[in-house]
Amino acid sequence: MTDALIVGAGPVGLFQVFELGLLGMTAQVVDTLPHAGGQCAALYGDKPIYDIPGLPFCTGQELTDRLLQQIRPFAAGFHLGQEVADVHQRDDGRFAVATSTGARFVATVVIVAGGVGSFRPRTLKIDGLAKYEGTQLFHHAVDPSSMVGERVVVVGAGEEALALAVQCASEGAQRAASVLLLHRRDDFRASPATLAQFEMLREAGRIQFIAGQVTGLEESPDRLRGLLVQGSDGSAHTVPVDRLLVCLGLSPQLGPIAHWGLGLDRKQVNVDTEKFQTSTPGIFAVGDINVYPGKKKLILCGFHEATLAAYGAAQIVFPGRDTPLLYTTSSSQLHRRLGVTSPDLD
Amino acid sequence: MTDALIVGAGPVGLFQVFELGLLGMTAQVVDTLPHAGGQCAALYGDKPIYDIPGLPFCTGQELTDRLLQQIRPFAAGFHLGQEVADVHQRDDGRFAVATSTGARFVATVVIVAGGVGSFRPRTLKIDGLAKYEGTQLFHHAVDPSSMVGERVVVVGAGEEALALAVQCASEGAQRAASVLLLHRRDDFRASPATLAQFEMLREAGRIQFIAGQVTGLEESPDRLRGLLVQGSDGSAHTVPVDRLLVCLGLSPQLGPIAHWGLGLDRKQVNVDTEKFQTSTPGIFAVGDINVYPGKKKLILCGFHEATLAAYGAAQIVFPGRDTPLLYTTSSSQLHRRLGVTSPDLD
Repeated sequence: MTDALIVGAGPVGLFQVFELGLLGMTAQVVDTLPHAGGQCAALYGDKPIYDIPGLPFCTGQELTDRLLQQIRPFAAGFHLGQEVADVHQRDDGRFAVATSTGARFVATVVIVAGGVGSFRPRTLKIDGLAKYEGTQLFHHAVDPSSMVGERVVVVGAGEEALALAVQCASEGAQRAASVLLLHRRDDFRASPATLAQFEMLREAGRIQFIAGQVTGLEESPDRLRGLLVQGSDGSAHTVPVDRLLVCLGLSPQLGPIAHWGLGLDRKQVNVDTEKFQTSTPGIFAVGDINVYPGKKKLILCGFHEATLAAYGAAQIVFPGRDTPLLYTTSSSQLHRRLGVTSPDLD
Repeated sequence: MTDALIVGAGPVGLFQVFELGLLGMTAQVVDTLPHAGGQCAALYGDKPIYDIPGLPFCTGQELTDRLLQQIRPFAAGFHLGQEVADVHQRDDGRFAVATSTGARFVATVVIVAGGVGSFRPRTLKIDGLAKYEGTQLFHHAVDPSSMVGERVVVVGAGEEALALAVQCASEGAQRAASVLLLHRRDDFRASPATLAQFEMLREAGRIQFIAGQVTGLEESPDRLRGLLVQGSDGSAHTVPVDRLLVCLGLSPQLGPIAHWGLGLDRKQVNVDTEKFQTSTPGIFAVGDINVYPGKKKLILCGFHEATLAAYGAAQIVFPGRDTPLLYTTSSSQLHRRLGVTSPDLD
């Protein structure tokens, strides 16, 4: 039992914990990523942000760290590296929530602070390919020992793609039978060390490279045998394959939220501007995932939305009870909740 | 000529400069108080604030200083210690603005970030008293030399009231003929040093004290001669007076904005939640002075309002031009406006 389940541990989800806590509500936080901070930490961890009010300059990681410090008094539970897989409203009005790793919650309100949605691996859009997922097709996390002696094709040009190709082609117990790297262009984006290893193995003929893209499959019943590749120079290839490793990065997707029955507008969740509540009473949406007239996808706007959503949530969590506006400067009740000493305010 | 005239230099007015500046608009700022920071600096300068997102703890003055640093790139003009006395819309749609000290502006938009309104001295509510203002009645700022040889009555019990009483009653060229302090109760709120001086002069009979309040005036034509005082113990007094010094602190008032013709709801300005525009197109209101469904008088909400108001202002300042949402992390245009170097974002 928790007062609020927050979906998303980005800056707005974190500040949601704070505003709920100030009003006396508990929270549990679920996020797909293995760490707090959302895309702000994942994509902009070391990049500058200049428009957080009162912080003339900070990085995404610094903002995350500051928010984690700010919400510490409220001891929210964090459930990372998992996705909310199912939400349904019980007869008593509360929400039963289950995550992809089996965690279960009963929450009085659900607050979606999902940013742009879940981050999922970008896939190759080839008819009939998806059914090989987990047997011959892999996205990211790959057990290298399963590549031994196999004909491996890696799709991608980033650090992860090149490092995997290097790993499969290097001397040792885990060496693949052959390694082919496929990418539209010859513009690799990897660390100098990985790039040097890759070029060395390529010159030694242990890694092949084709500039081109997959256009179709060659299959025997229930088995992927080869890839039809259209070269960027117009050439056509048929490439044998036992293991296809797709490393095209992460793409944000609305994910399972799309199936919760909430009112949506072009993959964003409609909310009111009074409580930032969705079309389902008790489910709120704050931050980049929501939409309303005037909406700007800015972190500082999400902070405001989370604040008003907390007051909206309080009406449900504490039915029939008024939630007055108190100030952290002067309220001894808020000071107790924050665990700070009340100053003498005469 | 300025793109925007901002009424109010509190935290929200300051951040308004930032958001306008990011979108390429100039601003001039007017405030009644003699310094930036509004009530946040004036009343909470050394008091803690815990709910600014990303700042687990700061004082009102620190928040003000941080915001002043953040808006430095935009070189807004500040016009402090004056009040907007007149606003009228010209035939070309722009606003002609005049302040109480004679400054004049022509602004494409006006953004009221007026907090709770202007701070004005609290007055004694006695019929017929106001006409002595400046001759026998003074609020706060008083020239002590004008008290020499006069019968002085000070109303109040705070630092300023006691310090004035002490000043008028002390040996020296500025000594008054008599000094009486009036306050409902014998509960003075002043620094230990001032209080000690006050008690010493009171024991020496140089300062009188009556616990009570003024209920009426004794006048000869055009001159205030005495005060009718109802003692807190039920006694009645007639107190002679040449100079009446009222030191009851500052009280927020909507001030001249009440006469601008904006839609009001219980002394607050109605706005939409898309642009935070008032009933007069081109006049916006952000921060504690506005009202809309769900409104909470919190600084962080004002930051959001100022942001959306800036986009609303851009539609008027740059007619027919789209204002896309840009990110301070990645936009080289914003980096130029902020005067920072664009990082390499690959």
